[in-house]
Amino acid sequence: MYVSQTQVRVRYGETDQMGYVYYGFYAMYYEVGRVESMRQLGLSYKALEDMGVMLPVLENKSKYIAPAVYDDLLKIVTTIREKPGVRIKFEYELFNEAGKLIHQGETLLVFVDKKSGKPCRPPHVFDVLLEPFFK
Amino acid sequence: MYVSQTQVRVRYGETDQMGYVYYGFYAMYYEVGRVESMRQLGLSYKALEDMGVMLPVLENKSKYIAPAVYDDLLKIVTTIREKPGVRIKFEYELFNEAGKLIHQGETLLVFVDKKSGKPCRPPHVFDVLLEPFFK
Amino acid sequence: MYVSQTQVRVRYGETDQMGYVYYGFYAMYYEVGRVESMRQLGLSYKALEDMGVMLPVLENKSKYIAPAVYDDLLKIVTTIREKPGVRIKFEYELFNEAGKLIHQGETLLVFVDKKSGKPCRPPHVFDVLLEPFFK
Amino acid sequence: MYVSQTQVRVRYGETDQMGYVYYGFYAMYYEVGRVESMRQLGLSYKALEDMGVMLPVLENKSKYIAPAVYDDLLKIVTTIREKPGVRIKFEYELFNEAGKLIHQGETLLVFVDKKSGKPCRPPHVFDVLLEPFFK
Repeated sequence: MYVSQTQVRVRYGETDQMGYVYYGFYAMYYEVGRVESMRQLGLSYKALEDMGVMLPVLENKSKYIAPAVYDDLLKIVTTIREKPGVRIKFEYELFNEAGKLIHQGETLLVFVDKKSGKPCRPPHVFDVLLEPFFK
Repeated sequence: MYVSQTQVRVRYGETDQMGYVYYGFYAMYYEVGRVESMRQLGLSYKALEDMGVMLPVLENKSKYIAPAVYDDLLKIVTTIREKPGVRIKFEYELFNEAGKLIHQGETLLVFVDKKSGKPCRPPHVFDVLLEPFFK
Repeated sequence: MYVSQTQVRVRYGETDQMGYVYYGFYAMYYEVGRVESMRQLGLSYKALEDMGVMLPVLENKSKYIAPAVYDDLLKIVTTIREKPGVRIKFEYELFNEAGKLIHQGETLLVFVDKKSGKPCRPPHVFDVLLEPFFK
Repeated sequence: MYVSQTQVRVRYGETDQMGYVYYGFYAMYYEVGRVESMRQLGLSYKALEDMGVMLPVLENKSKYIAPAVYDDLLKIVTTIREKPGVRIKFEYELFNEAGKLIHQGETLLVFVDKKSGKPCRPPHVFDVLLEPFFK
């Protein structure tokens, strides 16, 4: 499996009047985790789109364990557990500054050829970069 | 079970460069479905908070069947299938203007007493209003 | 001048921990005002884009008079004061349910030809529709 | 005057179907500039709120010079030009990775005592920290 880490700082605009991060903004944090995960691997999501491949989301799941609060510098641990084919699943664990696991999520995406609009295999370079992690 | 309907118009700021509604903004649409569902029942979410009860989210699931696009007037069908106790689950089905089911979601929330911060039973009036739908 | 009205309901996710609508979300409300203004005139923004014309924003100004709060059904009064040329300015006034003016904004946009990426005149139909209001 | 710098990475969810950052999300970038500016000075915005002082926004202005695009690592230069009293003005300049100035903004905020809800002087420590920059 492939595991990576990044951080995200909670913005004021992401809190709600309960004083916590609004439940709908975690998907943005997943995106940060996913995108930095790909960048660290060596193929940015932007580069992927430039190669003519998009990654729309098929399914998303979230588990809210404890609230994230304003200005917290959250650690996002992003994991690709299974070797991706036409579909790829990312799992996320969010930790607050005290090191407490506060949130879990997972997102299933599908590689889509921009021109045909149809599901496709990821670019060869992506397989090559991931290969060492799935032996 | 209790079923209600409302509508939401897709905003430009909710689309992304793929030309679809960004996957993270559906949670906002669920909120619209949930809030209007409670208003139609007779107890607005705002009134609930004024009674000293909050409804933070515990779990959320989303299934993206087909993309929503800019300016679509989406129909949101919101369902409470099981009689709520300390927890309440809302299910959502989103239909585009052509009547096609494009999205399914569900959110599990918990009634929390604002003062104690602890899970609690919903206010009695909520039970009374829901009762006819769970005979 | 051309004046139109619409409404927008404040969403929970639009509030912040101050208990008010986050200052950054008013631009979304302006968009609602602007888009419904054009729809009521007879040419939706979506139709405009389908004709090959985009309307990117050049300038934006906001004046926060009093806070908007959760679940408020805001009235948005949108005004086009000057006959638009290559540029078009929309002004907004937001009123809360008590009828109090709580916010003022204005947005300057430019008609851009999608193909050339250059500023252009609005489609003829737009001029025709606006003409009665600028005699 | 007091000048500071920080960076923000454009998220996918912040783009719209024009392929640019949606005009409404720049206010979030201003917030990042403002908050990091205060943190670098030595008094975080969070600490300010913990001292019982809020900073709601009174006015906001934006000038869109060139679009920001997905995944750009924007440089935000934040300036406090005038010594703040009860009100404080922040100015922002956004540069893309090519070093081009793409956006200018300014935000006027007011110090408000949380308890009384009335405008107030900033905490003494804030004046002390800013003093060297306004001699």
